[in-house]
Amino acid sequence: MGRKYVIGLDFGTESARALLVAVDNGEEVATAVQPYPDGVIDVELPGSCVKLEPDWAVQNPRDYLYALEQTIPKVLEESGVSGEDVIGIGTDFTACTMLPIDKAGMPLCMKPEFADNPHAWVKLWKHHAAQPEADRINAVAAERGEEFLARYGGKISSEWFFPKALQILDEAPEIYETADRLIEAGDWIVLQLCGEEKRNACVAGYKAIWDEGYPGTGFFKALDPRFENVVAERLSEDIYPAGVKAGGLLPEIARKVGLTPGTAVATGGVDAHVAVPAATVSDEGKMVMIMGTSVCHMVCGREKKVIEGMCGVVKDGILPNYYGFEAGQTAVGDIFAWFVDQCAPAWVAEKAAAQGVNIHQYLSAEAAKLEVGESGVLALDWWNGNRSILVDADLTGLMLGMTLTTTPAEMYRALLESTAFGTYKIIKQLEEGGVPITELYACGGLPVKNPFLMQIFADATNREIKVSASDQTVALGSAMWGAVAAGTAAGGYDNITDAAASMARLRDESFKPNRENHAMYEKLFAEYERLHDLFGRGADDVMKNLKEIKLAVRGTGE
Amino acid sequence: MGRKYVIGLDFGTESARALLVAVDNGEEVATAVQPYPDGVIDVELPGSCVKLEPDWAVQNPRDYLYALEQTIPKVLEESGVSGEDVIGIGTDFTACTMLPIDKAGMPLCMKPEFADNPHAWVKLWKHHAAQPEADRINAVAAERGEEFLARYGGKISSEWFFPKALQILDEAPEIYETADRLIEAGDWIVLQLCGEEKRNACVAGYKAIWDEGYPGTGFFKALDPRFENVVAERLSEDIYPAGVKAGGLLPEIARKVGLTPGTAVATGGVDAHVAVPAATVSDEGKMVMIMGTSVCHMVCGREKKVIEGMCGVVKDGILPNYYGFEAGQTAVGDIFAWFVDQCAPAWVAEKAAAQGVNIHQYLSAEAAKLEVGESGVLALDWWNGNRSILVDADLTGLMLGMTLTTTPAEMYRALLESTAFGTYKIIKQLEEGGVPITELYACGGLPVKNPFLMQIFADATNREIKVSASDQTVALGSAMWGAVAAGTAAGGYDNITDAAASMARLRDESFKPNRENHAMYEKLFAEYERLHDLFGRGADDVMKNLKEIKLAVRGTGE
Repeated sequence: MGRKYVIGLDFGTESARALLVAVDNGEEVATAVQPYPDGVIDVELPGSCVKLEPDWAVQNPRDYLYALEQTIPKVLEESGVSGEDVIGIGTDFTACTMLPIDKAGMPLCMKPEFADNPHAWVKLWKHHAAQPEADRINAVAAERGEEFLARYGGKISSEWFFPKALQILDEAPEIYETADRLIEAGDWIVLQLCGEEKRNACVAGYKAIWDEGYPGTGFFKALDPRFENVVAERLSEDIYPAGVKAGGLLPEIARKVGLTPGTAVATGGVDAHVAVPAATVSDEGKMVMIMGTSVCHMVCGREKKVIEGMCGVVKDGILPNYYGFEAGQTAVGDIFAWFVDQCAPAWVAEKAAAQGVNIHQYLSAEAAKLEVGESGVLALDWWNGNRSILVDADLTGLMLGMTLTTTPAEMYRALLESTAFGTYKIIKQLEEGGVPITELYACGGLPVKNPFLMQIFADATNREIKVSASDQTVALGSAMWGAVAAGTAAGGYDNITDAAASMARLRDESFKPNRENHAMYEKLFAEYERLHDLFGRGADDVMKNLKEIKLAVRGTGE
Repeated sequence: MGRKYVIGLDFGTESARALLVAVDNGEEVATAVQPYPDGVIDVELPGSCVKLEPDWAVQNPRDYLYALEQTIPKVLEESGVSGEDVIGIGTDFTACTMLPIDKAGMPLCMKPEFADNPHAWVKLWKHHAAQPEADRINAVAAERGEEFLARYGGKISSEWFFPKALQILDEAPEIYETADRLIEAGDWIVLQLCGEEKRNACVAGYKAIWDEGYPGTGFFKALDPRFENVVAERLSEDIYPAGVKAGGLLPEIARKVGLTPGTAVATGGVDAHVAVPAATVSDEGKMVMIMGTSVCHMVCGREKKVIEGMCGVVKDGILPNYYGFEAGQTAVGDIFAWFVDQCAPAWVAEKAAAQGVNIHQYLSAEAAKLEVGESGVLALDWWNGNRSILVDADLTGLMLGMTLTTTPAEMYRALLESTAFGTYKIIKQLEEGGVPITELYACGGLPVKNPFLMQIFADATNREIKVSASDQTVALGSAMWGAVAAGTAAGGYDNITDAAASMARLRDESFKPNRENHAMYEKLFAEYERLHDLFGRGADDVMKNLKEIKLAVRGTGE
C-alpha cells in the first residue's frame, strides 16, 4: 500500500483553499487557493439590478462548488499524487453562513423564480441585517427566562442562525415556505460532496442554540406563530460530532475533481474549531488561540460548565466526548493595523523604511526596548467591542496615561498588552468557572508576524505558548478530520488523538513566560481589570452614552 | 506737543522683546527681539566647568540688560521716533524667576567669588530642583493648618518663590547669608532701570504667598530656624500695584539706550497678567485667556473669594482695586503639537502638503466637517497634568471611544474639545465660587493659528470670545502700564481703564457660540465632567498607580 493522502477544504470569507496532506506524517504536499468569483455580495445581486439593503452580506453558493472543482485538481496535479491515494476529505466553513435549499439540496437562489430575491441567497456570517430579529429573540428569551441565554453570554448574536432564519420568515415568507431546509453552508457543502445531510454539532451548538436539543416550540411560537415548528420542519435534528464519516464522495463530483467515488467525507467543521487538533491539541486544559485580525479561544473540558461571557459551550463541539468552550476577542490584529494606518507618524514610517522593516516590525522593536510598566500607558482592547467576557458590541477603545513625551512605540506596546490582558481575562474567567487552562497553543498569522506580541502574551498570562508548525493550521485540521473519517481500514486513523499525534506538529521554539515581567504585568492587569469592570459592567456608561450621542447625531445628519 | 510713545519690554524665557507704541491710539510703531546670549542654562554654568544637577534651569542676569540695551535703540532707530518723545517704560517678566543680589543690586553671580556657585545665578521659573523644599513647605503648611494653602489650590509649586529661596538656604547657606535681597527678576530689572526696589503685587501675590501680608515668622521658623526672618531680612514688605511709577530712568541707562533720564518706569508685571488690559479688559466679569502651548485664565472680581483649584487670588494682582484670579491649563497647544508629531500618519502629512496647508490646518478642516458628538471620541486634556482646578501634575491624558473606523481628524477634534472642556470647567468653578464670567477675551498664538479651535471654545462654553487685535498683546500691555506710570501730565494716562480705551483694540470679528452645538456639547461635557471627577478626585487612581509603576521601573532601570 502506497503513501496515503487526505484533502482539507477550508472555505473562507473571500476564497477557498485545498490542502493536500500526507496521512502518515502530516506533510503538506500541495495547496491551492481559489477566490470566489462573486466574493462578498453587499451591493447588488449578481446578474440582476436588485440592490441590497445596508448591513446585508450574501454569497453565491455556486462559488463554493467552483472553488473546490478548481482547487482539488490543482493540488493533485501539482503534487503528482494520484486521486486513488486520497482516502478522505474534511471541510471547514465560516459560520453561521446559511441558505435555503429545496428537497434536492438545490439552493433557492439557483432557481429562476427566486434568483431576484436576496433571501434566496447564502447569508454570510457577517450579514448583520437580522439585528431586529436578534433583538426580538433576546427580548423574548429574557422574558421567558430561557436558560440557554446564559450559555451564550446572555445574548444571541445577529450573526447566528435563528435571527437569520427569522428574518427570512419576516421579510420573505414565500422563501421560508418554499425552503425544505435552512442549512449551514458547511453542512450543505458536505451534502453536495456525499449526498448526505449530516448536521454537525459544532455549528448547531455554537450558532443554532443546540445543546443536545434545541429550544422548545413554545419559544419559537412566542417569536412568531409561523415559526413554532422551525426545527421540525426546516432543520435536521440529527446532530453529528466532528470526524464522523458523513458519506462517500459522489461519483459525479469524484469524476470532476479526479478523486475516487466513495472517498470518505467527514462531517463539516468551523474554521477555528478544526484548528484545535491541528495545533496538536486533543484533550482538555489546553487553550488554542487562533490569532489574526481577531482571536478565537478554544478549550475542551470534561464537564459542562455555564460560564459568563463564553460564545457557547457545546458537547462534541470541538472534540468528540468533550465539552467545547469558545471565547473570543473581536479585534486584535485589527487594532494594531488600525494604529499603523491611523496613528503611526511619517517619521516612524521613514525609520522603518530606512531599516528595511515594516511599521509593525519597527514599532515592535522599539516597544521591546521598554521595560514592563515603563511607559505609564494602558489601554482597553475594545476597538471592535468586547466579545468575551462582556459580550457587548457597544464598548469602545480606551487609552490613558499619555503625556507630552509619550511615543508611538509606547502606545503600540500598550495596545499589544491590552490584547494580552483581554486573553488573560478570558483564561481567568474559564478557570474561575472550573475549566483549567494549563498551556496555550497558538496558530494563525500573528505568531509568525509578531513574536514580540507572543512574548507579551506569555508574560502577561504567565503561561508557556506553543505554536503550531503549520502556516495553514485550519486547512490541516480539516484534512485531519478527513483522515479520521476514512478510518484505519483505509489507511487513516481511528480517532483524532491518533491523527494529531502523527499529523500535527509544533514549532521547536515556544514562548516561555518571564516571571519578573509577569509580576509587573500583574500590577498592570489589576488596573486593566478594574477599568474593564468599571466601563464594561455599567458602573460608568460613558462608552454607551457616547455611542448613543453618535448614533443620534448621525441619524439626524442623514 | 508732538506724538508721544511708550515702550513695553517683555522678558520671555528665551529672549526679550521691545515694543514701541504710540500713546494716543496704541499703534505698534516698531518692535525688536533679542535672544539671550546664554539662553536657558541647564547643563553647565557659562565660562566654568560647573555642571548643573538634573531639573536645574538658571539664567545670566547680564543677558536681560544686554537685551534691553540692544532692543530699545533698535525700535527708536527703526521708527525714527526721538527718545525725547518716549514718556514711559513698562516691563513684564517670567515668574517666579528670582536671584540673590547685594546691597547695590548686583547679582551675586556677577561677583567673582560666587560665579562658580549655581545658587548665585538667576533661578528661572522652570527650575524644578526645589521640589524637596516645596514638599517640605506643603507638609509643614498642612500640618500647621496654614490658611494660605487653600488660596493656591492646596499646593505651593516648586516653581514658586519660597521653595527656591529655601533651596538656597539648604544647599548654599553662604549665598543666603551674603544676599541682601532675594528678588524677583521682574523687580530687579525695574531696580536696574530706575534705582528703586518696588516689589510688585503680582509676583508677590501669585508666587510668594503674599496676601496683604506674608505668612508669619512661625511658619518660616518651622521650615528652618534660619528661615524665620526671611521676609524681614531678605524681602521687601512694601508691595505696589501695577501701573505705579516705580521711578525715573537712570541717566546712565538713558544715555546707553537713547532715552531721556527720568522717563517714567512702571512697577514690573508678569507676562500673562499685563496682557489683560491689552486685551481691552479693565473691569470684572471678563476672562482673558492667553492661549498658546498652555492657557492662562485671568479674571478680576470686586470681592475676595477662595476658590478651589485657582493658581491664586491676589488683591491688585492683575488690576488695581480688584482681586485678580488666575487659573490655567498646563498644556493646550502642546497637546495638539504632540498629536501632530507623534500620531498624525504619513497619509495625513501628504494630504496636507498636497493642499498646501500644515497638518494642524488639514486636521482642523477635516474635523470641522464633523458634527458635534459624531465621532464618539472623548478625551481628558491632562497630557501635562491638570493645573486648574485639580492642581495635580500626576494626572495624565485619556482618550476613549475609538473604534476601528476612528480617524485622525476625529481624535484631533476630541483633543481640541477636551481643552475647551477644561476651560469650561474653570469657568464653572469660578462662577460657582461667586466670580461671574460674562465674556471671554483671547490673545496669544492659538486664536490666530486655529480659528476652528476658537469656535469650539465659544460653542463649548456658550460664550462669545473677543480676540485681541495685537499679535504682541503682552508687550503692548507692558507699554500701556508705562503710559499709566507716566501719567496725564506727561501725555500718558491717569489709569489703566483710560489707557485701555485708547490703546487696546479687538479684532472686528469675534467667535459667537452656536446654541445648537452648545446643547450637544453640554451632553459631552457631562461625560467629560464625570470622568474628570472619577480620575481626578481619587475615585479611581489608575493614573497615579501607573505613574508610580513607571517611576519604580525607571528607578530600578537606571
